[in-house]
Amino acid sequence: MGTSSALLPEIGTEILVPVCAVVGIAFSLVQWLLVSRVKLTSDRRSPQNSANKNGYNDYLIEEEEGLNDHTIVAKCADIQSAISEGATSFLFTEYKYVGIFMIAFAILIFLFLGSVESFSTKSQPCTYNKEKMCKPALATAIFSTVSFLLGAVTSLLSGFLGMKIATYANARTTLEARKGVGKAFITAFRSGAVMGFLLAANGLLVLYIAINLFKLYYKSDWEGLFESITGYGLGGSSMALFGRVGGGIYTKAADVGADLVGKVERNIPEDDPRNPAVIADNVGDNVGDIAGMGSDLFGSYAESSCAALVVASISSFGLYHQFTPMLYPLLISSVGILVCLITTLFATDLFEIKAVKEIEPSLKKQLIISTILMTVGIAIVTWISVPSSFTIYNFGTQKFVRNWQLFLCVAVGLWAGLIIGFVTEYYTSNAYSPVQDVADSCRTGAATNVIFGLALGYKSVIIPIFAIAVAIFVSFSFAAMYGIAVAALGMLSTIATGLAIDAYGPISDNAGGIAEMAGMSHRIRERTDALDAAGNTTAAIGKGFAIGSAALVSLALFGAFVSRANITTVDVLTPKVFIGLIVGAMLPYWFSAMTMKSVGSAALKMVEEVRRQFNTIAGLMEGHTKPDYATCVKISTDASIKEMIPPGALVMLTPIIVGTFFGVETLSGVLAGSLVSGVQVTESFSGYVN
Amino acid sequence: MGTSSALLPEIGTEILVPVCAVVGIAFSLVQWLLVSRVKLTSDRRSPQNSANKNGYNDYLIEEEEGLNDHTIVAKCADIQSAISEGATSFLFTEYKYVGIFMIAFAILIFLFLGSVESFSTKSQPCTYNKEKMCKPALATAIFSTVSFLLGAVTSLLSGFLGMKIATYANARTTLEARKGVGKAFITAFRSGAVMGFLLAANGLLVLYIAINLFKLYYKSDWEGLFESITGYGLGGSSMALFGRVGGGIYTKAADVGADLVGKVERNIPEDDPRNPAVIADNVGDNVGDIAGMGSDLFGSYAESSCAALVVASISSFGLYHQFTPMLYPLLISSVGILVCLITTLFATDLFEIKAVKEIEPSLKKQLIISTILMTVGIAIVTWISVPSSFTIYNFGTQKFVRNWQLFLCVAVGLWAGLIIGFVTEYYTSNAYSPVQDVADSCRTGAATNVIFGLALGYKSVIIPIFAIAVAIFVSFSFAAMYGIAVAALGMLSTIATGLAIDAYGPISDNAGGIAEMAGMSHRIRERTDALDAAGNTTAAIGKGFAIGSAALVSLALFGAFVSRANITTVDVLTPKVFIGLIVGAMLPYWFSAMTMKSVGSAALKMVEEVRRQFNTIAGLMEGHTKPDYATCVKISTDASIKEMIPPGALVMLTPIIVGTFFGVETLSGVLAGSLVSGVQVTESFSGYVN
Repeated sequence: MGTSSALLPEIGTEILVPVCAVVGIAFSLVQWLLVSRVKLTSDRRSPQNSANKNGYNDYLIEEEEGLNDHTIVAKCADIQSAISEGATSFLFTEYKYVGIFMIAFAILIFLFLGSVESFSTKSQPCTYNKEKMCKPALATAIFSTVSFLLGAVTSLLSGFLGMKIATYANARTTLEARKGVGKAFITAFRSGAVMGFLLAANGLLVLYIAINLFKLYYKSDWEGLFESITGYGLGGSSMALFGRVGGGIYTKAADVGADLVGKVERNIPEDDPRNPAVIADNVGDNVGDIAGMGSDLFGSYAESSCAALVVASISSFGLYHQFTPMLYPLLISSVGILVCLITTLFATDLFEIKAVKEIEPSLKKQLIISTILMTVGIAIVTWISVPSSFTIYNFGTQKFVRNWQLFLCVAVGLWAGLIIGFVTEYYTSNAYSPVQDVADSCRTGAATNVIFGLALGYKSVIIPIFAIAVAIFVSFSFAAMYGIAVAALGMLSTIATGLAIDAYGPISDNAGGIAEMAGMSHRIRERTDALDAAGNTTAAIGKGFAIGSAALVSLALFGAFVSRANITTVDVLTPKVFIGLIVGAMLPYWFSAMTMKSVGSAALKMVEEVRRQFNTIAGLMEGHTKPDYATCVKISTDASIKEMIPPGALVMLTPIIVGTFFGVETLSGVLAGSLVSGVQVTESFSGYVN
Repeated sequence: MGTSSALLPEIGTEILVPVCAVVGIAFSLVQWLLVSRVKLTSDRRSPQNSANKNGYNDYLIEEEEGLNDHTIVAKCADIQSAISEGATSFLFTEYKYVGIFMIAFAILIFLFLGSVESFSTKSQPCTYNKEKMCKPALATAIFSTVSFLLGAVTSLLSGFLGMKIATYANARTTLEARKGVGKAFITAFRSGAVMGFLLAANGLLVLYIAINLFKLYYKSDWEGLFESITGYGLGGSSMALFGRVGGGIYTKAADVGADLVGKVERNIPEDDPRNPAVIADNVGDNVGDIAGMGSDLFGSYAESSCAALVVASISSFGLYHQFTPMLYPLLISSVGILVCLITTLFATDLFEIKAVKEIEPSLKKQLIISTILMTVGIAIVTWISVPSSFTIYNFGTQKFVRNWQLFLCVAVGLWAGLIIGFVTEYYTSNAYSPVQDVADSCRTGAATNVIFGLALGYKSVIIPIFAIAVAIFVSFSFAAMYGIAVAALGMLSTIATGLAIDAYGPISDNAGGIAEMAGMSHRIRERTDALDAAGNTTAAIGKGFAIGSAALVSLALFGAFVSRANITTVDVLTPKVFIGLIVGAMLPYWFSAMTMKSVGSAALKMVEEVRRQFNTIAGLMEGHTKPDYATCVKISTDASIKEMIPPGALVMLTPIIVGTFFGVETLSGVLAGSLVSGVQVTESFSGYVN
């Protein structure tokens, strides 16, 4: 039992994983190249020549008077560089603070893990297999620190590169909108794909290289090897915390500030260049919805991979040194890249968007196609890389699992993701009755509107929770905590497509902003608005994915914690666990209260600054003078840097404080409670706040 | 161990409990008599004579021109009877539906419990003590059904009587406001006290009589006796569910409807008689905040008493047939009535309210005084009625408990209630910074206001949750589930004072409405507004109590369920329990979504009706024609009756469906999950919605 080997030999795995990763990176470079062909410098050639030169075989679909005007192209380039500079400067500021934290935390990890055996360099008996000798704790301390740093840097890089390509693509999308909605869509979507594939492939490649390098030292001590690899997940997710919170505060503060004074009080259009907060608003889309979302999904991806690997290392895969099944999580992600690549071609090359109303179905089709193809992909990977039966570590015992059961674990996660995505979309899209009801209620004023909105947010929780519950039940029953981890990976296996769709939204949003600011024709603005509307809806799908996978990942991590802490039951009927549960369930509220308060204060400051500029800068409303964009950018930057610390501290310190003062039982209650309640709170927001 | 007897002999208990209950009822009648001396019929005597005749030793503090005008008094009487009729008719409609449900449910209980031993009339071995013979299951079925009906009827009666006294007192408070704010305060507060004492004493007396009557049959079979008594708690709480939901939908729909059109669109004052929804709004206060709140707190009180009794019956008290310690829960409530009686005198007789700003401190002083006195009361009761050591049933084992530990269990519940009350008040009172911050944020519009409001609601959860966690930890550690149940009783031991304060709010609110509608001077309105403002804040305290005790009660019931289902561990690390937990945590959101949606739809209908009347009834805005109040009352009535069914069904059916299809393990997960998450959701609302 558990010793029959996989169809795919070790050498096959060693080739397949890096090749898929490199293909992913190459594909994203090709997409980038295609986007870069849209020139932001106005050249003297006629449009026809320029189009040929760009490799597009068709001509401008419509020519509008004055649209090829050099000043407009130059204006677009200017605005783009302002947004890009704002975003870059914010991210550098953020990374400066986060970097300090990262180094401090890395030192802590080293000291903490190293001190377990007083920095001894002697080998020691393994934790799970006492007969074998494992590498010293000092080695684990060093390698964990290294993998933590690798994870953190990869996370920051993912966010940063995503932001860069997004700010590279926004003005280009605007210019393409002149040629038609289909062209603009393809530019925005390709740029999203650059980010999606870069992130997925990069995450996979770094993890793969780290495993192989660490293996040179650890040799047959897989227990130690994969324990130190978990640092990668920790690094990824702790950066995600700051990226998400910091970026989120930035974007919401700027958004609320810009809209409240501009749209509501001054009655000027969205993204009007006279609005002092307009650049901050557009920067926010890039640092919050692009860089933040990128870090976030990378964090989930890294954590679920690491959780699966660490459980596998003490299951039959690890015990019998079966390399191919051991790398099953990475193989799933590798095939995921290929599947997403094919899926992307459906949107960019196989079909063509001709009308506005085709955009949203096309994006949804992406999700459906990738899910169907990936189901086949999972089946193939499972069939060739996993023995027909094996055992999985399950809180002290070994659980017998068959390969088709493992397939079902991954598949149920994948499909739960699709269901959550579509339900979230249903509750946020204006095509369906829920949002129409809310809009309807506006007739009677803000109070009923808020009631309906809240009710809708709460109601949108129901089906996703059932989907998550089914995924948990199936994967937990079949393959314990390993099942949960691979279900999360299943949900994230189409991450490249998911991110492409996600990133597409803010890029279109920005494109619209640039069109408005550059003073382009309202017909262009209508096109970008249509792109944006589709993007907003599908962004909700992305958020659904992020939340669903986060729920599964946190459960997998919870399982890993419980396994490591040698806890075999977490009994609700003991006072320690129960109060942990109830206090833990409160934490997401506390966290939300902190971040909402932060957004509120930052928005207040922004509103006051925007009002001040409108009141004191003469000729601003008439468009004679330029507003002071930089001050607004600074307000958002300062507020989000300052305000991301308390919620971050709450998340990081709670486990340490609870664990130290109340013990692991209460801590496991706290973790379970905040996990269970966190899913609800975030899910209710994904419907509400959008 | 556990056989040493209590200081208080059985006969002492048999006298003390009913005497306290009767004293409570007598006190409430005296208060009612004092309120009734304010005449609503205008008599021909001079004010001086009338004042003497009423037993008041002072004269009208101020005489305002025309205020003793007969037409105004008659108008007040008219409006009062309109409100009273609306409320009575709503409650009768509600009770008609609830009555059908009650009878159907009673039949179900009988069939279900009776069929366990196929309606056999033979004695059977006891569940916990197999050597002894207990009464047949058929007897338990009959007596459980009887106690269920008793609980249900007592709950309905409590709500109904509360509503009656409230609608009896509102116009009297208005008239007393002519004499000064102090007089009006005393009238409103006395009326609240009538309800508080009537409810507390009634609940205690019915329970006491039921125990003694059932004992005539059960004799020494205390296990069966107290198992059938639990029906009382079930009856009380199932009526509370409908009372709370139905009344809540009614009051919020009418309130939102009246305010949105009247205050916001038409710019007429609150409670203006021209507003067609004004009567419905005032009726709503009585059926929602009075009758609903009364049923709710009675439900919690009955459930915690029953939970404590059923655990005690299988602990040493029950095993050794120690009657006095067995009735410890009732003794606590008895002393609570005496303590509240003394506390009430502080407000009505020992101190006098002279200025508006003294009202709120005076109400808060009530809470502090009752808590301090009750601490002493608990100590005395525990000392005289409980042996110095005894054992308590704890999931299959007997736990050794000392009397001072039991004292601490009750006291920690009592003080946690005070803390929760004051924190809730802090977050809702406009005297402190949180609400000022929210008000501040209105400067910048609705969006930041909602963000700050939500953040505040979420933040207000933190300290109450810690207070509840401490109470649970202390009482659970000392005396297992019995500890939790008596902690809940401790929190509810000052229920008479709590309800008096609670009921005071809506009465003052109504008084203000009547003043406005009767066209009384704005100085009267200012006084009633001041009373109302204090009442709104302290109502938040009441809600805090209700939520805190509900959390403890549901935990105690959860413990009772788990004990009866023979479950000894509820392990989060099993898939069945975990998905139960996550789905259970979703249920409060589902429930909230349903009720909010209901409120929203009802409010929409109300708004449309009010608009329709303003638009079609000629001369309405000018005050020449009377609006059609009855249609608005009917809209609220119909909506709340129709809409209370789905949330009610969700609550009642979930345990049955989950238990039947997924088994008790998943069910225990669902219960724990919804308990933990329900506390947060309701607590966050108590700060937000108020």
